Formats: sequence, structure tokens, C-alpha cells
Amino acid sequence: MAKMLMIDNLQYSNWNQEIFEQMHYGGLCAVHVTIAYHENCHETLINIGAWNRLFQQHADLIMPVRTAADIELAYTENKIGIIFGFQNCSPIENNVDLVEIFHQLGVRIMQLTYNKQSLLGAGCYENTDSGISSFGKVVIEEMNRVGMVIDMSHSGETSTLQAIEISQRPICISHANPNFFAPVKRNKSRRVLSALAESGGLLGFSLYPLHLKNGPNCTLEQFCNMVADTVELMGIEYVGMGSDLCLNQPSSVLEWMRNGRWFKQIHNDETASSNAAWPDSLTWFNNSSDFPNIASGLQKKGFNDQEVEKIMGRNWLRFFEQSF
Amino acid sequence: MAKMLMIDNLQYSNWNQEIFEQMHYGGLCAVHVTIAYHENCHETLINIGAWNRLFQQHADLIMPVRTAADIELAYTENKIGIIFGFQNCSPIENNVDLVEIFHQLGVRIMQLTYNKQSLLGAGCYENTDSGISSFGKVVIEEMNRVGMVIDMSHSGETSTLQAIEISQRPICISHANPNFFAPVKRNKSRRVLSALAESGGLLGFSLYPLHLKNGPNCTLEQFCNMVADTVELMGIEYVGMGSDLCLNQPSSVLEWMRNGRWFKQIHNDETASSNAAWPDSLTWFNNSSDFPNIASGLQKKGFNDQEVEKIMGRNWLRFFEQSF
Repeated sequence: MAKMLMIDNLQYSNWNQEIFEQMHYGGLCAVHVTIAYHENCHETLINIGAWNRLFQQHADLIMPVRTAADIELAYTENKIGIIFGFQNCSPIENNVDLVEIFHQLGVRIMQLTYNKQSLLGAGCYENTDSGISSFGKVVIEEMNRVGMVIDMSHSGETSTLQAIEISQRPICISHANPNFFAPVKRNKSRRVLSALAESGGLLGFSLYPLHLKNGPNCTLEQFCNMVADTVELMGIEYVGMGSDLCLNQPSSVLEWMRNGRWFKQIHNDETASSNAAWPDSLTWFNNSSDFPNIASGLQKKGFNDQEVEKIMGRNWLRFFEQSF
Repeated sequence: MAKMLMIDNLQYSNWNQEIFEQMHYGGLCAVHVTIAYHENCHETLINIGAWNRLFQQHADLIMPVRTAADIELAYTENKIGIIFGFQNCSPIENNVDLVEIFHQLGVRIMQLTYNKQSLLGAGCYENTDSGISSFGKVVIEEMNRVGMVIDMSHSGETSTLQAIEISQRPICISHANPNFFAPVKRNKSRRVLSALAESGGLLGFSLYPLHLKNGPNCTLEQFCNMVADTVELMGIEYVGMGSDLCLNQPSSVLEWMRNGRWFKQIHNDETASSNAAWPDSLTWFNNSSDFPNIASGLQKKGFNDQEVEKIMGRNWLRFFEQSF
């Protein structure tokens, strides 16, 4: 297969050289990495400090992304551009000024909520979705102003539809699938996906087994059929990849992601059994080095080279050009 | 007088439009503003957030400085470039990674100590000056790496001499005077000033009355004589201005500067009587609009136009070109 521009719009691994080499081997030129789930402002600075060290230590493999042009530079130089993102708004605490400050530190994507109620809106596992809060509206306006992408992957339906409506720029759902493919609360309705595409926003397809039909037994063919069905709904321009890869993480991290500091006892979400454990991985997608498998699967499904490259990366690049 | 590039390398005012207009009227193209004295990391982010708002609100008058080229741009556009600085190392707490993070947020100058012992070294009012600490050496190396200027204005003599020795880049004393002019502990010895100049570092002359001979009664002629004497000691290339203007601040801020959170009772330093009160101001230097008075005084003292401009700003510009 000819060289192709490929972007993965969500990973949260316990980063090390091997993982960066897998990205390189798989041909990715940019990865959106989660740098905070439930961390407060100061804890997030610690995480950014750790990333600044990684940039120094692995300068041959990775580089920070501030603009879409940085992604093209990474593509040219065979490096992986790293895009910082938050899966929750906890780092900005209750202070709208922290949006610009984190933007200055390189953060380009923020989920307004992670599963539960946040100061900005409601998560997909909250009982009542009250929509975007007053503070949420202010934060959306500020994110629009500075160029930070609104991500509603873990948000509730009402909050998501309102965010699409309120935001002056297209938003994204970086990692989720249509719920017609796998009917879990984390996946998205036709209504949300249509509104997203109509507003110029993008969906990133998740490869997390619990977001897929048949879980870890989902086949590449089934996955590519889902992509085709979604393209029919949203249009070829409005989809991309958002693998949700979580590599080299102990189950304690899964507990942290799911429970934050909300509960006194361990809770698990709909996708998990009573014990926090990572699902088995897909046979055809084990880590970043397997991205070419997806591209091949899409070709087999009937997408032409240009269409495959749009899905694998060009759509995100265009979206980031308009967003950062 | 022809237009001249003028830089003030320290102010800490309660900023408002009037103060920015005084800078503009006085012909300044850059001002080093203090954004933290005793603030911790998070409190400093709040201060940066407040400055980001000022940049939005007063975009016609001020702009942020990240590089020396930004200062030249401000000069060309008749704006005032704002350079962020810390008067103490409290914002980086005990975390060397925060040096780069604050550099990313625009901080370009940091004092290693403010009057007392810090994690990095000793202040000029500390009983025992133990010099630069182990952590101090690591922080100096990191400041050298990222391009953040080491400022020893409020440091003790041993710490200052060691910082000059350890730093791979020239350092500065942004706001102080020679102690042969006014023998207060905050002013600097011939030994320090010579070592500073020999290493390529700069001294900024303070206009804070308590750093001057005869306090508020110091005349412009006496001030300019001091400049001439210092130029004889250090060389014309190694001096500049660092007014230490503190405008529109209540005495509670003076107490905060002097006492931080160190004491349970209010302490005042050597320069103050028992009550914290701002000194009377100089008749010939009341605020930034009076900088041309200094330039005139220096001309009268016998400096030619080129020399006056070096002292008033060009030396700092050259220093910042090498430092940021």
C-alpha cells in the first residue's frame, strides 16, 4: 500500500518507546493522546511536564502538535505528532481563564464531560441529562475563541446536541461508534451523528472492543461494514479513526478512568462485568502497528484509495486545520 | 528628542489603562512585569489568566513578548511589549518541570530568591547565605535550556556570585543599584557588579526611592552621576533600566511583598520604618511617562545619543535576543 496520511484521534497508553515505535511502524503521523481524565489543574501540569520530558527523550519519534501544519511536518519527517487532549473538563476546574492557559500549553481537544455530570454538561451514564450548563456555554465560547476542539465522546445525547448547536465551530466525537452497530450508551444515535455531520463535525471510529458488535470477536469485515453504513448516514467527509487504544495500563488505571474520585466503592460502567478488567483485544487490531489492516479492510469493502485516506487521516487533518 | 527604543526591566503595578497609557506616552516599547512574588503554581496561573484578559482588553496598547523580535515589533507598532517575570521561585514549587511549563506560558525571567531563603538560594536579607542549593543548580540548568533569564535582584551576595558562575548563560540583576551609591542590602557590591558584567550580564538601575542616595530627595543629577560611575565600573554595554515602579498599589500589597506568608506578625525590611508605607516618589520620575527625563539627564551628563539609547533600552534588547 502506498504511504498514506493516517491520524488516530484517541489513545491513552502508558507511553514508552515501544508504543511510539508501533505508531511509527503502523504509519501514523499524529495521535491525539489523553493527558487528563479526572486530574485537577495542578495535576494536569504535572502530566504536561512528563510529556515535555517524553518529547526530549524521544525526539527522533515524536513531536508536539500546536497547529495542523505540525501534523503535515510530522508526516514529512516520518514522526508522530502528539495532540494533547482532556477526556474531562476537570483540569480547568471552575475557571474559564484556564482554557486559554491550557491552550497555550498545547491542549487542543477537551471533552466537556466524562460519563457523569461535569460543571459543563452531562455524561452518557448520568441518569438525567440536563444539557449544557451556564458555565458550559461560557467555556464553549472560550474554546471557540482560542481554538480548542469540543469533544463529546463520553457525553449524553441532550448535552451533545446542545453543544453542536451552541458551538460556533464544528465539534467532534473523537472515539465512539453508532449505536445501531453496538447498542451501548457510549455509542451514538443516528440523530446525534446526523446533527454532527450537518454541522461539519467528525466522528472517530472506536476500536475498543466493548464499543463493537460481538466485543472482542468483532471481525474486521463487520467493522468495515459499520464504517460503510456510517458513511452512508454522515458522508465520507465526516468520519475518521479514534481507536481508544489503552496499552500497557494496569487494571487500576481502568478503575481510575471509570471511578475517578466520585465513589467510595468501586463502580463499573455498563461495558464491564463486576471486576475492572481490560477486554481481550481484537485479533486484527492489537496496537498502532495494525492500522494498515484497517486501511486494507476498507479497500476490500470497496472504498477507493482517496476515500480510505480520508477515513484514515485526511478528514481529521482538514478538521484540525479549521479548528486549532 | 528623536524616537528611542526604551525598555523598563521591572514594574509591578496594579495595571490599568492609565498605566499602559503612561508607558506609551513615555515611549517604552517593552516592560518586564512581575506576575508573582509568593504565589504558588496554581495562583500564578490565575495571574496569567488575568494578564491574558488584559491582552484582550488593551490590544491597542499592549502585546505579549515571547521573543526579542516581539519587542522590535512592539517598537515598530508603537505598542508596549509585556515580558512576564517572577520575583521569586515559588511558582515552580519543588518541580523542575514547571520551569518549561511556565516558559511555555510566556515567563521569561525568574528571580531565584526574594529577600529570604528559597528552595534555590538565599535572599539579600537572609542571615546566612548558603549559596545555590542542589535543586537550584538543576533549575539553573533547566532555565538555561529553555531560555528563562536568571534574575538575582533580591538575592544575597554569595548566591549571586554562584549563580553567575553556574549559569551557562549571562544572568541579570533587573532592578538594583550599586551599594557605593546607597548602602542598603538590596543594592550590589562592586564585586558582584564586576562579575556580572564580565560574564555578559546586565544591571537594571532602580528608581525605587529607598534604593537611592537621599531617598525620595535624590536628584536626577545624582542618579545620572551614579549611572556614569557604574558605567565606568561595568562598561556601557552592561547597564539598563529597571525602575521597580509600583503604581496604584495599596500598602497591603507592600506588606504582601515584604512578608509573603513567612511571618505571623508583620515584618518590614531594612528600607522601611515600622509601618508599611510606600515612599514618596521622586519629583523627576513619577511614572512611566517620565522616562524621557532620564534620557535627557543622561545626555546632560555627557552620554551621546547612541550611549543613551543603549542604557535606556538597546542593551536589554541585545541581552534578551541572546536569552529568550
